[in-house]
Amino acid sequence: MTLTHAIRRTTRTLADGREIIYFDDTAEAPARTAVDTRELGPRAAAGHLRYDALVGDWVAVAGHRMNRTFLPPKDECPLCPTGHGSVPSEVPDVDYDVVVFENRFPSYAPVAHDDVSAPDFFLHSAAVGRTEVVCFTSDHESTFARLSPHRVRTVIDVWADRTAALGRSPDIAHVFCFENRGQEIGVTLHHPHGQIYGYPYVPARTAEILARATEHHGRTGRLLGADLLAAERADGSRVVLSGEHWTAYVPYAARWPVEVHLAPHRDVPDLVALGDAERDELATVYLDLLRRLDRYHVGDGGLPIALPYIAAWHQAPTRTGRDVSRLFLQVMSVLRGPGKLKYLAGSESAVGGWVTDTRPETVAARLRDLAD
Amino acid sequence: MTLTHAIRRTTRTLADGREIIYFDDTAEAPARTAVDTRELGPRAAAGHLRYDALVGDWVAVAGHRMNRTFLPPKDECPLCPTGHGSVPSEVPDVDYDVVVFENRFPSYAPVAHDDVSAPDFFLHSAAVGRTEVVCFTSDHESTFARLSPHRVRTVIDVWADRTAALGRSPDIAHVFCFENRGQEIGVTLHHPHGQIYGYPYVPARTAEILARATEHHGRTGRLLGADLLAAERADGSRVVLSGEHWTAYVPYAARWPVEVHLAPHRDVPDLVALGDAERDELATVYLDLLRRLDRYHVGDGGLPIALPYIAAWHQAPTRTGRDVSRLFLQVMSVLRGPGKLKYLAGSESAVGGWVTDTRPETVAARLRDLAD
Repeated sequence: MTLTHAIRRTTRTLADGREIIYFDDTAEAPARTAVDTRELGPRAAAGHLRYDALVGDWVAVAGHRMNRTFLPPKDECPLCPTGHGSVPSEVPDVDYDVVVFENRFPSYAPVAHDDVSAPDFFLHSAAVGRTEVVCFTSDHESTFARLSPHRVRTVIDVWADRTAALGRSPDIAHVFCFENRGQEIGVTLHHPHGQIYGYPYVPARTAEILARATEHHGRTGRLLGADLLAAERADGSRVVLSGEHWTAYVPYAARWPVEVHLAPHRDVPDLVALGDAERDELATVYLDLLRRLDRYHVGDGGLPIALPYIAAWHQAPTRTGRDVSRLFLQVMSVLRGPGKLKYLAGSESAVGGWVTDTRPETVAARLRDLAD
Repeated sequence: MTLTHAIRRTTRTLADGREIIYFDDTAEAPARTAVDTRELGPRAAAGHLRYDALVGDWVAVAGHRMNRTFLPPKDECPLCPTGHGSVPSEVPDVDYDVVVFENRFPSYAPVAHDDVSAPDFFLHSAAVGRTEVVCFTSDHESTFARLSPHRVRTVIDVWADRTAALGRSPDIAHVFCFENRGQEIGVTLHHPHGQIYGYPYVPARTAEILARATEHHGRTGRLLGADLLAAERADGSRVVLSGEHWTAYVPYAARWPVEVHLAPHRDVPDLVALGDAERDELATVYLDLLRRLDRYHVGDGGLPIALPYIAAWHQAPTRTGRDVSRLFLQVMSVLRGPGKLKYLAGSESAVGGWVTDTRPETVAARLRDLAD
């Protein structure tokens, strides 16, 4: 029997008007009433979007992000609770379990300035939307893989909460929950955190996934995501681990040196649709997967290398293709081996011709061997 | 009046059967008759392609490339002429002007092993095609930007020669000439060189560019590439430099920190179609552009930073969409500033939502200021 996971949700406002939401999962958590005492001035607006007619896609131009916080010393970490460092942080309270707030340097925000004056041929619009930061723990030195299953369950509920909340905005066409981990992928803050983007359009790769799913559904009456999962489970050679509700596998045509997809057994469009039992198992299965990934590469002295990764939740867009989309998590890494990165050079970046030098079956076999 | 550029073409065979072609542009170049004396064993076959049904795209799996030469010391450079280093190189002769040979660690090759045994649901095929290395000069310490206009004209003729030759193969659907420059983009050999890929399919981004061009042509009767060039020239705020036959501009929706497109004024599908006057001017215009790019970022002590870049020729596929495609060169860099790279993290890599923090007009203005 599964008990409903209990979290307490407290919404507050930062000094510049941005929203901050505490999600507490411990019974003893004190009320989150601290006031943001910083002098921040007005909140930063987002910029604008430009249409790239060459490929039929949008590019967000966010000039102010050039000045965003870059690898600050630990005692100036903006994601630690206030009082942990030498300066007030983005989180006014002295502690938190999980906290979400609007990004100070937003790619998309409720307020956006479209300051382009271009002839009609060049399409543009304001980058209206929302970009949020999700801190997984107040412990600066931790990682997602070291969270408790209880905390991961909270994070899952937070992702679902934010997906539902952002999805209600008429401005937001797609909600994307993700974690970038490691300097090799450009992370500028070490504190364990993820991000949530609410885009005002359906981004190109999501649109492509939706187009293929729509085509498959029209042709077969079935969900492409379900057929891919069934085929991977039937083949088995790329399956990493499997529970009652979830299966993790290296996809047949994996394009990253390390890539795993984690898919629910039930057809669901997004995180909101997951039930309690599915969320509970996801917490343990995802932790198991991340811990294997952190042992995948072994460095000098036989020590495992904390894997830099992108963990990306592919969900149905908020208002299109919800009947053909199927939720999955994509975790991928650019690390080919100790000190060796996969680069997206000419073939991948210019013409989109991907070449990989790792066999998906070999990656899966190694990940299967790395059980606790 | 333009004189036809004279080059001498000598085809030879390496020890493992791979083709090598010398393109000499100096009247005094001796005959290229040296024999490859290495014991290489049989040439490496390419691997296979897997179909990624999720996005409708192919991924080449080339396992042996994991062992390719990685930043060798200068006296073991495989691209220097033999005799310059301590070991015989890939080029048997003691000198060359420009030389092209088939890649020893090929992503695509005339011989490819499709060793996948997968159920019908998973599509695969042999990675038949061709991957070539183009050495721009025998001078290990040089760069493309430091070549003479005469030599660049030779390289242009070589690109056209290879585009025509590879395009005649029934196995090759698209020919891509490019240069990856700099360790920041993953270059594993410092010797100035580019590559040519002959793909057995039209890669995804090229296919997308073709789809948009086809749609535009069907709707307007015009070439999208011509309309974009005309709009950029009319607007002018992003134009970097312009000649009689070529214009370089930062595209309206540039997505890389530094990105320039160089387009011919005449509608041509590929490099083969360029005339002598166009090739001559391209040599000087491209050198001018590259020299500006190498002064774009300034490091400690006021010294300019050699820009890591991808220079990518977008051509019409060999047999599809030739009537709607229009040649252009895309040069882009991941370097945002000294020591700061643009990373393709969650938003770009997972859902395809691009965010840039540099304004195209600002980049263009700086490049205009950097004239010799």
